Amino acid sequence: MKIKVLKFGGTSVGSKDAIKRSGNIINDCSKKSKVIAVLSAMSGETDRLINLTKSFAKSPNPIDFDNAISTGENLSCALMSIYLNNQKVKSRSLLSWQIPIITSPEHMKSRILFINKKFLFKELEKFDVLIIPGFQGINNKGEITTLGRGGSDTSAVAVAAALDAECTIYTDVEGVFTTDPNIVSNAKKINKISYEEMLELASQGAKVLQTRSVELAMRKNTKLSVRSSLQPKKNGTVITDEKSLLENKTVSGITYTKDEAKITLSRVLDKPGVSSKIFGPLAKGNINVDMILQNISQDGKFANLSFTLPRGDLEKALKILKKDKSKIGYKKIISSDNISKISVVGVGMRSHAGVAQTLFDTLGKNKINIQVITTSEIKISILIDEKHTDLAVQKLHQAFKLHK
Amino acid sequence: MKIKVLKFGGTSVGSKDAIKRSGNIINDCSKKSKVIAVLSAMSGETDRLINLTKSFAKSPNPIDFDNAISTGENLSCALMSIYLNNQKVKSRSLLSWQIPIITSPEHMKSRILFINKKFLFKELEKFDVLIIPGFQGINNKGEITTLGRGGSDTSAVAVAAALDAECTIYTDVEGVFTTDPNIVSNAKKINKISYEEMLELASQGAKVLQTRSVELAMRKNTKLSVRSSLQPKKNGTVITDEKSLLENKTVSGITYTKDEAKITLSRVLDKPGVSSKIFGPLAKGNINVDMILQNISQDGKFANLSFTLPRGDLEKALKILKKDKSKIGYKKIISSDNISKISVVGVGMRSHAGVAQTLFDTLGKNKINIQVITTSEIKISILIDEKHTDLAVQKLHQAFKLHK
Repeated sequence: MKIKVLKFGGTSVGSKDAIKRSGNIINDCSKKSKVIAVLSAMSGETDRLINLTKSFAKSPNPIDFDNAISTGENLSCALMSIYLNNQKVKSRSLLSWQIPIITSPEHMKSRILFINKKFLFKELEKFDVLIIPGFQGINNKGEITTLGRGGSDTSAVAVAAALDAECTIYTDVEGVFTTDPNIVSNAKKINKISYEEMLELASQGAKVLQTRSVELAMRKNTKLSVRSSLQPKKNGTVITDEKSLLENKTVSGITYTKDEAKITLSRVLDKPGVSSKIFGPLAKGNINVDMILQNISQDGKFANLSFTLPRGDLEKALKILKKDKSKIGYKKIISSDNISKISVVGVGMRSHAGVAQTLFDTLGKNKINIQVITTSEIKISILIDEKHTDLAVQKLHQAFKLHK
Repeated sequence: MKIKVLKFGGTSVGSKDAIKRSGNIINDCSKKSKVIAVLSAMSGETDRLINLTKSFAKSPNPIDFDNAISTGENLSCALMSIYLNNQKVKSRSLLSWQIPIITSPEHMKSRILFINKKFLFKELEKFDVLIIPGFQGINNKGEITTLGRGGSDTSAVAVAAALDAECTIYTDVEGVFTTDPNIVSNAKKINKISYEEMLELASQGAKVLQTRSVELAMRKNTKLSVRSSLQPKKNGTVITDEKSLLENKTVSGITYTKDEAKITLSRVLDKPGVSSKIFGPLAKGNINVDMILQNISQDGKFANLSFTLPRGDLEKALKILKKDKSKIGYKKIISSDNISKISVVGVGMRSHAGVAQTLFDTLGKNKINIQVITTSEIKISILIDEKHTDLAVQKLHQAFKLHK
């Protein structure tokens, strides 16, 4: 039995017309193979539902919250299947508990643990198309759980991995681009990219795919591609393992995020255990610290410690660190929230030297000051003044010849 | 464990304020006993969902249709429980499959077969309030089913019957009235009424309670009452068995329906089997025929046959009967759709003579012509010209002294 897994995001099921358009893609595909379509809620619906719950409680209790927001995908799935049945496609919508999709116990940020593929195979003997809600599952207590923002991508990859099928993510853009086309007009669509690069791009700000879904596809070696539901005939981007790429480009893409903040603690005592006194309480407060930088002072006793975090968490982090001032033992705390992070990603960096040099040259020539640098095997990230973001991305895109 | 079952209809959960108001009723009640609240969808929501499905198919396929419209109650239940949790009430919303509520196999007009009370008792050990969706269940194939219009009342009574608890229906009126207060300004709220009378009132047009729910309450002897969610302190109407009523009023209430139509077939051969040739095809076409009247012609060979049906079904019925003209063998078919039905209901009719006489006198005095009469043990129904409806109801209400 040949099976394809297709995922349609919120904008691809965001209106009656969008549902019909995406339904036609499913219909076409179902003529060549069995189809499992994983759907998001209609665009805006999840936000509407979240706002509704918030009008009854600042922090809605998790069981009921997940019951409320899971109705969004259930509705879009049912509507899609009604449309397909009307088009004479043998289709049915499923609810996550009917399969079931089993997740970890926690609510609102669950992880998928198990998908009952036997049930799916059995249903595919009766139906040509199954429509499954993304973003949700049930836990071992039989409660509805949700996966957190962007979870539908992960649901789709998990279903594909369980069935050993290909997964195509239909969205409102043509594919993954070398950088944001809103900033660089000649940004190019990437035809093929490795899981690792895609993972770095996704986690560094490219919003086409959710990081967790790429991670899962990489681990399970699931063939993943991204296409536009508006132009389904156009080739999108294929995400695959490095071996399948004929040639590794030195740099594949450039991403940026503007919602960064930086905190610097001056004259922190440089001795074991200090870091955990700083980052332990932050982690407990659910604050994700990203880049960390430490410079030892001249006398070797003290260090200046800087790190970045999401801008929305800045106030909370400052509060925690000020409360712990005497415990940590620092002199001053300095913060800024007008910074952005730019990342240059490419598996070719491993073998090609000079990427960092090109980056420094380009920014230097354009008088853009680099505040922090971090590197990994296939990525260089820098922190700069937010006002230079667009210029930096444009100049780097050109310098690395990504438009060609 | 003392348990109360409360049901809140669409208008009682139709807005944020309504949910909070009804939530406060649940909260108050939960201080004295455990509460199971059965909720409808927010008013208008089920219609919105039905219209959505219809925009994808004229006749949506049943599985997906029920998946779509069942989201309405799931959302209102979750929101209610979020509000209650925020008010420090130990509450959770449940989905019908979690309990489960088992129904007959068919979709869109299912009947409840079984409610797993063990699960409810177990949950009531952990929670003070359970919020349950009305109107829906799952069938033996594990598919979501719905009970048809007004099914939430039936869900509530079924839950109460399963747990041997009292059931209070909260709605947007104070209780059951002697007749429609919009027509008769001094209509009185009925404090106590028997199941049988309520059943006749409900099926004859009093819209406060759904007929099926009264039937079920009567069969299971479930104590049922109706109250206003806007004025929860006010006593409503208690529906109980006849024995608990101290004194039977001759007439308890007067109802009317304006959406009636009448069909007359002239000179039908008066021989066995003709009726089934007429009513068989109508029943197959899902048309509910109500009053039937047959007059034998003077020669004893032919009959004129009249019957009433919902006005919305008139065209369809005429089509069926015209197609079968030669098979049935009638001379002419005559229809009218400007008629209404008025029913006078009361268990006291059994022992008190003269009800019919008062009715005839009253209408005669007011020059209202009676087209058809049918009677049962506790009800007299008449068919009159629609334009006389209000006058007839007003005069009868007065004649039977229902305002006293």
